[in-house]
Amino acid sequence: MKLFRFGEISNEKTGVILSNGKKIDVSAFGEDYNENFFVTNGIERLEKWLEINAENCSEVSDNTRLASCVARPSKIICIGLNYAKHAVESGAAIPSEPVVFFKATTALCGPNDDVVIPKNSVKTDWEVELAFVIGKKASYVEKEDALNYIAGYCLHNDYSEREFQLERGGQWVKGKSCDTFAPIGPFLATADEVGDPQNLRLWLKVNDEMLQDSNTNDMIFDIPTILSYLSQFMTLLPGDVISTGTPAGVGLGLKPPRYLKAGDFVELGIENLGTQKQTAVAYK
Amino acid sequence: MKLFRFGEISNEKTGVILSNGKKIDVSAFGEDYNENFFVTNGIERLEKWLEINAENCSEVSDNTRLASCVARPSKIICIGLNYAKHAVESGAAIPSEPVVFFKATTALCGPNDDVVIPKNSVKTDWEVELAFVIGKKASYVEKEDALNYIAGYCLHNDYSEREFQLERGGQWVKGKSCDTFAPIGPFLATADEVGDPQNLRLWLKVNDEMLQDSNTNDMIFDIPTILSYLSQFMTLLPGDVISTGTPAGVGLGLKPPRYLKAGDFVELGIENLGTQKQTAVAYK
Repeated sequence: MKLFRFGEISNEKTGVILSNGKKIDVSAFGEDYNENFFVTNGIERLEKWLEINAENCSEVSDNTRLASCVARPSKIICIGLNYAKHAVESGAAIPSEPVVFFKATTALCGPNDDVVIPKNSVKTDWEVELAFVIGKKASYVEKEDALNYIAGYCLHNDYSEREFQLERGGQWVKGKSCDTFAPIGPFLATADEVGDPQNLRLWLKVNDEMLQDSNTNDMIFDIPTILSYLSQFMTLLPGDVISTGTPAGVGLGLKPPRYLKAGDFVELGIENLGTQKQTAVAYK
Repeated sequence: MKLFRFGEISNEKTGVILSNGKKIDVSAFGEDYNENFFVTNGIERLEKWLEINAENCSEVSDNTRLASCVARPSKIICIGLNYAKHAVESGAAIPSEPVVFFKATTALCGPNDDVVIPKNSVKTDWEVELAFVIGKKASYVEKEDALNYIAGYCLHNDYSEREFQLERGGQWVKGKSCDTFAPIGPFLATADEVGDPQNLRLWLKVNDEMLQDSNTNDMIFDIPTILSYLSQFMTLLPGDVISTGTPAGVGLGLKPPRYLKAGDFVELGIENLGTQKQTAVAYK
């Protein structure tokens, strides 16, 4: 199943993409794609509901705004430096265990919303990433069991302000949490729709120029390792978003480094998980 | 006004401490102390509601479990190394701008709940801190205007696993986010109840031994500076908890360092903001 959300900011509705590609409004199901939905086997219940109700659902037109494919989660957790060449381009050592940081959940936005370059920012950068969404409460999970805790997968652009992140003292969260810095979607795909999540092409272009082009088979720590590892340090809740790191080709790693200016457009995609397109705009 | 929450985990109710010290159940008001409550001027509305309804509210007995005084926020943001002597005892430089990190909101718990020493932890440490709660949405706030964005103040023990935080690679969040690592309460006090928040004694004892004993007038970055600074990097939402750092006397800074063992008990308090008491227990 492929789940998406659409409509105006703060008034989003839920939708499903049917196997024939048709996008339908399932807001009559009466639940958002949030913690409570995943806790209560929402995907399974929605599937059953669709058997009876799909034909009465209206179609969602292609020019409707898409929202984040999940409602605001309790956490957005990211893994840093999880592709070897990206660690090298960032001037960092290959990590011996996962590097973990948070993004503020206020950064969440739709996959095609404008990315707002924050006030006083000169180093707004891109990062195409494969994210997964937690399906059931996870604490001290074994690696062998980890995939059972995943509700699905989605595309995420982990926008990063490199000066805020690296040159302002302390921890990375300052450069990861600005509004619009976490476009997520266009849809959440359950595992059966994705193929092998550890063998998906992922890519990102700025102004039509391909800058990131890699495969999730290049991750240093794979998805089960990441989920199991995180669950040793905190409880993961249904709906939480975990982003698995970006491959080489970010602005920071280019020679000379290159960052977004107002008017630039960023396109990105992951095999089987759709594409996003953001236009960079100045804060006003 | 002093707001508190009480009752069983996941089934908490709201309460108010009256000026005569009596604790009453205000769950008939029908709202939890969450983002929506603060967005909609909940404190003011609750005050008016009490004028008519207080006398019909039942009393909450002193042996009832207290919960976190606010419902799960979108973020718990902490300031690191914000007291000069604590920076020195941690072997860190005095920061030139605020050091910012997040705690998972799943760490939230009641002020007197047991603190669970995580599996594989050998360095669970304490940190008494003054926290404040955001009252209205804050983005790019001027320092002069910052106090208008605060709903109230409360006591927080920013538990920290020092090995997870400092010796496992990357960012601090790994050592700050374990379940029960954020006891908050016993109550949220509005500004008029607190006096000068920049002149409050704060202290912490382990097994009756005073280990932290300082005053909020020793902060490097004061509360308006912290709020204004954070709002340059992310949007703060009503209900968000911001913790302002701990003074000297944590286990990491003792010679030799000292960490919690099962059976230890930790008591802490801040002038005008009540006290907490946690017993350390092993994970089982």
